[in-house]
Amino acid sequence: MSLISVGTVAIDNIKTAQGWKRNLLGGSASHFSMSAGLFTEVHLVSAIGKDFPKKHYDFLKNKGVDLSSVIESGGKTFAWDGEYKPENLNSAITLKTELGVLVGYKPQITEKQRNIPNVFLANIGPDVQMAFLKLMKNPKFVGMDTMNLWINIMKPDVIKLMKKSDLFISNDAEAKLITGETNLIKAAKALRKIGPKLVVVKKGEHGVLFYCDDFMFSFGAFPVDKVVDPTGAGDTFAGGLMGYLAKMKKINERTLRQACVYATVLSSFNVEGYGLAKTAGLSMVEVDQRMKSYVKFITP
Amino acid sequence: MSLISVGTVAIDNIKTAQGWKRNLLGGSASHFSMSAGLFTEVHLVSAIGKDFPKKHYDFLKNKGVDLSSVIESGGKTFAWDGEYKPENLNSAITLKTELGVLVGYKPQITEKQRNIPNVFLANIGPDVQMAFLKLMKNPKFVGMDTMNLWINIMKPDVIKLMKKSDLFISNDAEAKLITGETNLIKAAKALRKIGPKLVVVKKGEHGVLFYCDDFMFSFGAFPVDKVVDPTGAGDTFAGGLMGYLAKMKKINERTLRQACVYATVLSSFNVEGYGLAKTAGLSMVEVDQRMKSYVKFITP
Repeated sequence: MSLISVGTVAIDNIKTAQGWKRNLLGGSASHFSMSAGLFTEVHLVSAIGKDFPKKHYDFLKNKGVDLSSVIESGGKTFAWDGEYKPENLNSAITLKTELGVLVGYKPQITEKQRNIPNVFLANIGPDVQMAFLKLMKNPKFVGMDTMNLWINIMKPDVIKLMKKSDLFISNDAEAKLITGETNLIKAAKALRKIGPKLVVVKKGEHGVLFYCDDFMFSFGAFPVDKVVDPTGAGDTFAGGLMGYLAKMKKINERTLRQACVYATVLSSFNVEGYGLAKTAGLSMVEVDQRMKSYVKFITP
Repeated sequence: MSLISVGTVAIDNIKTAQGWKRNLLGGSASHFSMSAGLFTEVHLVSAIGKDFPKKHYDFLKNKGVDLSSVIESGGKTFAWDGEYKPENLNSAITLKTELGVLVGYKPQITEKQRNIPNVFLANIGPDVQMAFLKLMKNPKFVGMDTMNLWINIMKPDVIKLMKKSDLFISNDAEAKLITGETNLIKAAKALRKIGPKLVVVKKGEHGVLFYCDDFMFSFGAFPVDKVVDPTGAGDTFAGGLMGYLAKMKKINERTLRQACVYATVLSSFNVEGYGLAKTAGLSMVEVDQRMKSYVKFITP
């Protein structure tokens, strides 16, 4: 079944030990769509500026992403400059953020899109996430992501959204920030108590923890020894998870474990290239191949 | 087959948010023996002082640990005072270390012990580890552990021992410290290049990474939500790993995966009580029970 996601579409400029890579297609919704699109039809909801390169637009379109609700307005596209130091590739240093067209952005979708059953709130302001969610008629399954910035400055809004979500995805630092718990299991339980039935905590190079009332599990990350650019790894993970679940008839322990395996494998590809370079070219054959060796890697 | 290990026997004084716990039986060899002893006969090689409480000695003896080569000499028993802050239970703050009888300690073993096939060098000075290893006639399998202190001040000795070991166990910080690699997979590969065929990197609450030429794997930790005292978790892990392998006829991928599962489960028990309180009372029924839920927890 199809999937709709609100989030950012960005122009990323990334600095690593290898120098600058400029004008990359980035943003939470772009990474999410690329990954989820391997499993199901994805509708993207976002805003871009007049400066948004045609090649990026065509690229998303050619990848099969539905762009009917990507609004072009007068300002500049959301832009992010970030740096990764070689000693800590897991965490980005933000050099510059220009909100551009995201200032005052009000999501709009088509009447037909309001009936899409699977909904994902990729990382963007919680006010935008809520405005978008209100447009959806009767979603079957709602997943959400957020970031430390929103937890710090708009926590009540984040909490409100969590209460309306079935699945909450965060990283370990965010899980601790929301709940005040330093133990990750306790943090996951506390997140569950806020509302979402399913809780996923990403631990970067240490893999993922899944928690719900009936069971929990934890997988290590796929070992990548040449990390090029981790930007969007979390969004790629979310895309794999939501995309796989949207494709499945049932959400149960088996499909959730499998969804986390796919999500992990997809984000391992994402970090091996700048921007979307690696994930965009992926075939399901490549994905399934890596999935097999990953499953072997983590099976006791 | 039986197992012999050199290491420390200590008096631990542990400070946590719950206050002080004093005169606990501690030390790398004590924790190691308790865990390895669940699988096989363990011979302990160490030194204790005149002040060593009879109850601790009797306790080890009653647990079936062979103490023939635990030498009592005139000084004081090695003593360690450590603190765990609630916000970071994974890392101990050393408040005081008194080497006591370990100063100038020369390990001695019985003629019969020289033929024991399985050897473990638990954490103690690399000079002591080497002196002990030279006493062994023709060991079938040698495992070793060390710590940041020895890597910092006696790295060439640590390296020399690694070249004589089949299995090297370290934590992630030590693996990075020895190799200079920040990526854990690269660090594991670099450790393998130094000499030991089998490399285990413990990642605390993030589980364990195993590396050898033919395969590698990674398991998450068992989720413990009430960590009481993490002292000796690494030694307990090593004991489970070495003990299980000593019991098995063959060391292969299957037994190594199983050994890491047991090691993880045993160290999860260890952190739930002060000192040896929890591990000492364990039955294999309890261990196997937790093992089952752990395997379910990490199986994709």
